[in-house]
Amino acid sequence: MSLHPAVAAVRLGVRRSLADLPPGATVVVACSGGADSLALLAATVFEAGKGGWRVVGATVDHGLQEGSDERAARVVAQMAELGAAETFSARVHVEGGGLGPEAAAREARYAVLDEIAQRVGAEAVLLGHTRDDQAETVLLGLTRGSGGRSIAGMRRAFDRYRRPLLDVARADTVTACEVEGIDFWSDPHNDDPRFTRSRIRTRVLPILEDELGPGVAETLARTADQLRVDMEHLDGLADDLLRAAARPEGLDLDVLEPAPTAVRRRVLRLAALAAGSPAAELFHDHVLAMDALVTGWRGQKWIDLPGHVRLLRAERLLAFRRSE
Amino acid sequence: MSLHPAVAAVRLGVRRSLADLPPGATVVVACSGGADSLALLAATVFEAGKGGWRVVGATVDHGLQEGSDERAARVVAQMAELGAAETFSARVHVEGGGLGPEAAAREARYAVLDEIAQRVGAEAVLLGHTRDDQAETVLLGLTRGSGGRSIAGMRRAFDRYRRPLLDVARADTVTACEVEGIDFWSDPHNDDPRFTRSRIRTRVLPILEDELGPGVAETLARTADQLRVDMEHLDGLADDLLRAAARPEGLDLDVLEPAPTAVRRRVLRLAALAAGSPAAELFHDHVLAMDALVTGWRGQKWIDLPGHVRLLRAERLLAFRRSE
Repeated sequence: MSLHPAVAAVRLGVRRSLADLPPGATVVVACSGGADSLALLAATVFEAGKGGWRVVGATVDHGLQEGSDERAARVVAQMAELGAAETFSARVHVEGGGLGPEAAAREARYAVLDEIAQRVGAEAVLLGHTRDDQAETVLLGLTRGSGGRSIAGMRRAFDRYRRPLLDVARADTVTACEVEGIDFWSDPHNDDPRFTRSRIRTRVLPILEDELGPGVAETLARTADQLRVDMEHLDGLADDLLRAAARPEGLDLDVLEPAPTAVRRRVLRLAALAAGSPAAELFHDHVLAMDALVTGWRGQKWIDLPGHVRLLRAERLLAFRRSE
Repeated sequence: MSLHPAVAAVRLGVRRSLADLPPGATVVVACSGGADSLALLAATVFEAGKGGWRVVGATVDHGLQEGSDERAARVVAQMAELGAAETFSARVHVEGGGLGPEAAAREARYAVLDEIAQRVGAEAVLLGHTRDDQAETVLLGLTRGSGGRSIAGMRRAFDRYRRPLLDVARADTVTACEVEGIDFWSDPHNDDPRFTRSRIRTRVLPILEDELGPGVAETLARTADQLRVDMEHLDGLADDLLRAAARPEGLDLDVLEPAPTAVRRRVLRLAALAAGSPAAELFHDHVLAMDALVTGWRGQKWIDLPGHVRLLRAERLLAFRRSE
């Protein structure tokens, strides 16, 4: 019996992503019970047999949907069945706080995964995001209008986290589960039109494929790959410039003025965030207004930013103050 | 009678775009006879009265559609009626050559506009592209998957050309024409579903507005504005690195290797283009393969690129050769 191409695609993603892991390493796979994460776990267990790694399964119950506790128990059983050497199920209590419910759930999830990773001494924690998730993220970011940062999509790796399926189509994870006899769960949230991401998934991307040809998701993901490299470099230059311009009393205009626009604007945004202006309210127009205080100055004394932050120009310095 | 907001929006675009023009300057307005360019001409004539500029109208007949010569004559009459001090109509013969028909028409159009601008001594040539054209350009670029460059959209200005309506909605140019009693032409090509841009205009953008909320065109245009600044800076860094790495026999690996990925990959692309690899066939995968010759070298001798270009690694140099 030959290997099904969908199973091969998922395994290839895992193999590439974990190529640097030494034998004996422990890998945590985060599992929601959906096709993507169960296919990821199955492929990781298979590749672990060759790489000599120990695979730990972890599922997080956000307690946001009815019956989520039963589902978590079912995922734990599935993870063990698929060959995870150890399994964890953690219930988190999500409070909105200053974040939206989605962001709050994400934060709680990462906190739990970090804890599990630390407890089992994991070298890597794998997330099941696919190429389609990446395309949706790019389109979501595009509708935000906040520049390259928001359309650069998800990173392949950060801290101990890795996303082995970022080049794998979601449909391949579904097929892989089907041919391997893995029973997966379909989150009703994914098709709920109240969520922007669901509308992008169920309505926008299919129309784009119809009108512009198949392969749109792949194209969007490829654009994100390129933008991420660009944005990381520009962000690095901005970190350097921020350090170079920082004075105890504010930012040195003699350093900022001659700097390249793309880098200077990033520094102004970073400085405003550090001064307490909230990211969700600090728009590009605010950045342009700050920049005008540097390069288009006509004697104005200050501008007001979201979060009661005021940016003043005094002598050769820009200084942030609370505005009340 | 108060000024209609649509007319005000078009005039504001012109005023901002031409704020630096001295009195006595000559401005050419390129007119297709569509709502955008006729609204642009009317607004430019109005603002010229205050700025003391001379307005010249120019229309280009590509001879691609039946009756295009009559239409050109009609546009000339309209331009004079709207107050252009001088008018030009030029017929161009478009040959495909190596370019597609759209690119060939664009090239021929710019050549004619350049000639007219030179003849009348124009400081600026105005193009009627609107915010919606910009949004369409971004989406077109996104479907190409060639990174930030292709989604950075059209520039506000280049050489002597300016686009004063890049912040103005297409609908405002239509309304402006209507309230000013200007009879405009609707190009049937714009709704012809054989063209990708038409499908983006008539099918994709309306769906995006429905599903993601109004203002999508504005958001896309704003994203392009930010990306353009970023891309220009990175392109500038690449020009510098290319100069620093250039040796008579090839590119110096001691210079390329430690350079930042985003900049190095741009240099490799530029060098491949200069060596004769055609832009339309040189994809990101080729750039990644070239880059692997620098940073992931395992003894391979060369890679082949489109256009019969071969990139060889020898000692501490990368060199391009014809591959046959």
